[in-house]
Amino acid sequence: MRILVLGGDGYLGWPTAMYLSARQHEVGVLDNFAKRGWELELNVEPLMPIHTLQDRVTAWEEVSGHRLPCFVGDLCDYEFVRNVVCDFRPDAIVHYGEQPSAPFSMIEQRRCVLTQMNNIVGTLNVLWAMREHAPACHLVKLGTMGEYGTPNIDIEEGFIEIEYKGRKDVLPYPKQPGSFYHLTKVHDSHNILFACRIWKLRSTDLNQGVVYGIATDETVKDPRLATSFHYDEVFGTALNRFCVQAVAGIPLTVYGKGGQTRGFLNIRDTLRCVELSILNPPQAGEYRVFNQFTELFNVLELAETVKREAEKLGCTVTINHYPNPRIEAEQHYYNPRHQKLLDLGLEPHLLSEVLLDSMIKAVQERRERIKPGVILPRTRWNGGSQPADAEEASAKS
Amino acid sequence: MRILVLGGDGYLGWPTAMYLSARQHEVGVLDNFAKRGWELELNVEPLMPIHTLQDRVTAWEEVSGHRLPCFVGDLCDYEFVRNVVCDFRPDAIVHYGEQPSAPFSMIEQRRCVLTQMNNIVGTLNVLWAMREHAPACHLVKLGTMGEYGTPNIDIEEGFIEIEYKGRKDVLPYPKQPGSFYHLTKVHDSHNILFACRIWKLRSTDLNQGVVYGIATDETVKDPRLATSFHYDEVFGTALNRFCVQAVAGIPLTVYGKGGQTRGFLNIRDTLRCVELSILNPPQAGEYRVFNQFTELFNVLELAETVKREAEKLGCTVTINHYPNPRIEAEQHYYNPRHQKLLDLGLEPHLLSEVLLDSMIKAVQERRERIKPGVILPRTRWNGGSQPADAEEASAKS
Repeated sequence: MRILVLGGDGYLGWPTAMYLSARQHEVGVLDNFAKRGWELELNVEPLMPIHTLQDRVTAWEEVSGHRLPCFVGDLCDYEFVRNVVCDFRPDAIVHYGEQPSAPFSMIEQRRCVLTQMNNIVGTLNVLWAMREHAPACHLVKLGTMGEYGTPNIDIEEGFIEIEYKGRKDVLPYPKQPGSFYHLTKVHDSHNILFACRIWKLRSTDLNQGVVYGIATDETVKDPRLATSFHYDEVFGTALNRFCVQAVAGIPLTVYGKGGQTRGFLNIRDTLRCVELSILNPPQAGEYRVFNQFTELFNVLELAETVKREAEKLGCTVTINHYPNPRIEAEQHYYNPRHQKLLDLGLEPHLLSEVLLDSMIKAVQERRERIKPGVILPRTRWNGGSQPADAEEASAKS
Repeated sequence: MRILVLGGDGYLGWPTAMYLSARQHEVGVLDNFAKRGWELELNVEPLMPIHTLQDRVTAWEEVSGHRLPCFVGDLCDYEFVRNVVCDFRPDAIVHYGEQPSAPFSMIEQRRCVLTQMNNIVGTLNVLWAMREHAPACHLVKLGTMGEYGTPNIDIEEGFIEIEYKGRKDVLPYPKQPGSFYHLTKVHDSHNILFACRIWKLRSTDLNQGVVYGIATDETVKDPRLATSFHYDEVFGTALNRFCVQAVAGIPLTVYGKGGQTRGFLNIRDTLRCVELSILNPPQAGEYRVFNQFTELFNVLELAETVKREAEKLGCTVTINHYPNPRIEAEQHYYNPRHQKLLDLGLEPHLLSEVLLDSMIKAVQERRERIKPGVILPRTRWNGGSQPADAEEASAKS
């Protein structure tokens, strides 16, 4: 199949492109390197050095023999999107091409508006280009489990049958996203559902949990093929950040009580879920949602697991309950369904001691690159961005 | 109270500003005249000539003795929004300042993206300016009953208690909007709910039905104070369009079977609902939704009512079932609640023969200005904009 990966320079986009390319698909990668610019603005960078997309494409061709046509441009530029769709004629589009950080979207007005515009317009342009030039193409869109929030009832996969005052209907699951970033994924979901309904497009919306890990069968083939590992407060996620803190001798920062429960998955499972979606496309006009995670953890459990494993490797680890910069429930019911991808054949890689051990060792090899100053949260949901120093003063251990 | 009306040059914004001004509030009007530009692009105009905002403000001061400070600029320009909020220091902001047409948003990619950007960014900017400079201000936001679509269960006011597998929660009512325009109102609702939750802002989201009528106590005081009456396929709504068709001897265009049921209200009730919301503000942090309509009609009933009244006035009227340019259910369950504004004291002006009689007479006085070419639908939900001629060929009477 011909598969176009939007955001092909990113943490998940790049490994997805190689994974699909290794499996004999014709894969193109598209990116405008916006995230690299945002990293520069905030003075954060991945722990392992990341080569340019063009150099990685060259390295992949050397290693695998497969070419990855590269399209450099902005999804918010409709002429560009239309030209790429016409040139590449994708059977499937995997859409990671969005601003991916909740804290980034909360820093200030400018970055909030940038996030919403970038994500919403990019996705609208993809939908219009599909409608005009590739109506049979399958849009595999990366959403987030964060679209649902933490309701006090079970979370279903995208839709819920509601019985109310003696009548019934199956309706879109009510959304309670927790940041301006998460809101963009909700807006995208509504826009995509509508486009499928009126234009008979087909789409799979992957409501993904928190991804951890950096190693895939392809990234380990050559150091130039590495994908980005973020541990900073803006682009890093909990497990990655904890591993870096454990190695650097910085207390693990659990936000608030740490009872926040979330779905997690290994990066290898992300790639397999995308592949399963592509291999089992929806019908014309069908919009479907898969909840894409394999395990539930609360944040404190995760910190304790990292502490245990890191101590085996000789680290000295403490855990800090940090004032929660976000506004979210710290103790809550959480029972999200995640059956559809298992039914398609997903065999989860669960979080194991082996995985944590190898992640911590990989961090240890790069410990000299850790910037401790970028880890503590500066972005507060109710007060914009503040210097980390002010935060440190009020930190409780 | 100090009340800022966004979109103060529009069909509802202008009468709202005068209504509140007449009731001793200090009212400011803000507009960038974008809609007048869109009218020029599409070669449509209101049936009655509309003076410039500045001239209407002057006329209102002559008639009433009340000044209306006028702010000319774009809600998408954050510096402008912030400066106005700082200068005017509103206690309440009434937000009509959005692209208001569903067909406009469906014409093509450019106008779809324009609609979503204009509406979403404008509202985000208002929220950020309130947070930074007017955190106690009450945002009265105009939404639409079209956010809900036509679910097979009762529609509540914004939230619904769901009992599911033995557990309960009160969650945002699931939304099924029917155009890229209606989607913007859903996106706004999600963004506003979130801003109220994290920043303790307060907002009333008025999910309004289809408004009809042009006469208010203020507009009738002087011809220069008239508000816009649209009958074209882009900015006109069903009842207004039917009155014009009846007078012009053009068959009333019922889209499809005409069983589409919607909530309707008189323009006078819109003004009263906004006033009731302002006089009874929500608490800090509270986001509430009022369903704002007074009666339900289906489109065919409405056409038959107009036909009956217009014939009494000597018109010869036929009704055409036109191929539906929209994608929507033409027969459906519809039972939306609309209790909260009644509880606050709303006394509805129901659609009566008297009202229709006076509307039809007002149209008759301006019949020489009717442009028959702008009435038939060109914008198809599944196929962009088409010349009216092609439509006429397939019209069924």
